[in-house]
Amino acid sequence: MRPYAFGVDIGGTTVKLGLFETEGNLLEKWEIPTRTEEDGRQIIPDIAEAINEKMKARGMTPDDVQGIGIGVPGPVLNGSIVNRCVNLGWGVMDVAKEMGRFTGVENIAAGNDANVAALGEMWKGAGEGHENVVMITLGTGVGGGIILNGKIVSGIHGAAGEIGHIKVSEDEALPCGCGKKGHLEQYASATGIVRKAKELLLDPAKESVLRDLETVTAKDVFDAARNRDGLAEEVVRFSCSRLGRAMSYIADVIDPEVFVIGGGVSRAGEILLDTVKKYYRETVFHASENTEIALAKCGNDAGMYGAVKMILP
Amino acid sequence: MRPYAFGVDIGGTTVKLGLFETEGNLLEKWEIPTRTEEDGRQIIPDIAEAINEKMKARGMTPDDVQGIGIGVPGPVLNGSIVNRCVNLGWGVMDVAKEMGRFTGVENIAAGNDANVAALGEMWKGAGEGHENVVMITLGTGVGGGIILNGKIVSGIHGAAGEIGHIKVSEDEALPCGCGKKGHLEQYASATGIVRKAKELLLDPAKESVLRDLETVTAKDVFDAARNRDGLAEEVVRFSCSRLGRAMSYIADVIDPEVFVIGGGVSRAGEILLDTVKKYYRETVFHASENTEIALAKCGNDAGMYGAVKMILP
Repeated sequence: MRPYAFGVDIGGTTVKLGLFETEGNLLEKWEIPTRTEEDGRQIIPDIAEAINEKMKARGMTPDDVQGIGIGVPGPVLNGSIVNRCVNLGWGVMDVAKEMGRFTGVENIAAGNDANVAALGEMWKGAGEGHENVVMITLGTGVGGGIILNGKIVSGIHGAAGEIGHIKVSEDEALPCGCGKKGHLEQYASATGIVRKAKELLLDPAKESVLRDLETVTAKDVFDAARNRDGLAEEVVRFSCSRLGRAMSYIADVIDPEVFVIGGGVSRAGEILLDTVKKYYRETVFHASENTEIALAKCGNDAGMYGAVKMILP
Repeated sequence: MRPYAFGVDIGGTTVKLGLFETEGNLLEKWEIPTRTEEDGRQIIPDIAEAINEKMKARGMTPDDVQGIGIGVPGPVLNGSIVNRCVNLGWGVMDVAKEMGRFTGVENIAAGNDANVAALGEMWKGAGEGHENVVMITLGTGVGGGIILNGKIVSGIHGAAGEIGHIKVSEDEALPCGCGKKGHLEQYASATGIVRKAKELLLDPAKESVLRDLETVTAKDVFDAARNRDGLAEEVVRFSCSRLGRAMSYIADVIDPEVFVIGGGVSRAGEILLDTVKKYYRETVFHASENTEIALAKCGNDAGMYGAVKMILP
């Protein structure tokens, strides 16, 4: 085994990089901007340059590097090929091949960012000590990653863990971003939580501290609910019941050891966790009622950790 | 590798046994009754005796046997320990240890019958050539088995693949066998199909050939629907829409290569398959819309094939 490895998490605005020892210690982390102009053609060369400079600064050669793991915000097939990545401007891109060409490093693995973050939380976060972990990321959208026996489950079309697109409602008028209706993302994302709050605020009979705010955020809703604002509590129950139900479906299919909830919305903390647990337990098959549900611990570093973990033994 | 192996499928009334060459050829299959009296304490000794006699008749010793794989109608932990198996009368039972004690064969693996049948269909049936297979068995109840990378996914509580207990309805008055409400098993099992038909027949305004029957079976419902009986068609749409929706949840979680539908209800054939496909495609995330959905091929032998496959390389 060679002594070093790199973990790379490509986001829509910044790329996070980490230099690791192959035993797993993080030596150094830094960021570079993601240049999405010109169909994102500079992204891989930029990352390669950052890695090459780091190697040079530390007197390393590609022979000292066990590999480079890369998280990408799109579907990844065969650990290498990205097929359409809207946020980066990419069409079909062989990430592993390109990165190898620019760095001289041979062992390169790419994975979907939500899957890779799940692996990171399993390795260094709320899933530590487990090998069967489901991570759910509640941000602008809802993402998911499935880890079984310590390995990412990608699915035959790269669509495993598309938890945000589980249908949880039969009576939805508006389409989800994907075009279909009633998907979890429409209710449990930050956007979905705000939408529900605004819908309830249309009823002038309902009092709420949220009326006094110029703009309402998901954080405002959870803060108000924590202070027993009735309308905000209704929104939290609404969103968490749908999330808990979707989690029950996941448990009925793969019965994991732990669910890890991350993303911006998860900063709501205990109120989110307690409400989700209640609805999850009501719905799930009895054998899985006591499955652990925890808040993510790695924050924005989950992707970088999971990326490098893909190429570590 | 040793030359022979046994596959055993323990059912509530009969045990199916198969003697295989380790390359996979079935040499011989036969059945013995399942003696469930006295808390099923004779079941393992009976099977061991059948295997010992077969070895003797063919001049084999335990050293000629690669292993024995066993399918059990209950949850199995660590490939060995059954925790409560109502149909057999068992409490906690270390199947592998007991079977080893009575036969002298060392390599023994036990698995849940629905999971083992899924493995059998992957190996010798409708899932042949695939490694990521979901099998759904529509019988008196609804069972499921999940195979990823050629291996059974059992789940941390042995509850993976409990597809029959996915909640697919919010407005159900009666409980499922498990105690909770609105589960797939209440709609897509033979029992559930007949229940829905009887419910619709309560409306005297609805004409149907099913009224002329003394007792209605799931087969009668599908036969009538095939002949364009309006009430029967409504039942088929109702059941298949719920099954298709549950399958969409499964695909959103693990995105398999193929769904295999088996069990008595699956003899309905194309009308079942076509109706399920329609609702599945309407609901699932777009990337998985064209996932193959096929009818099971191994019939009652799926469990025996899957059982032996567990101990083959």
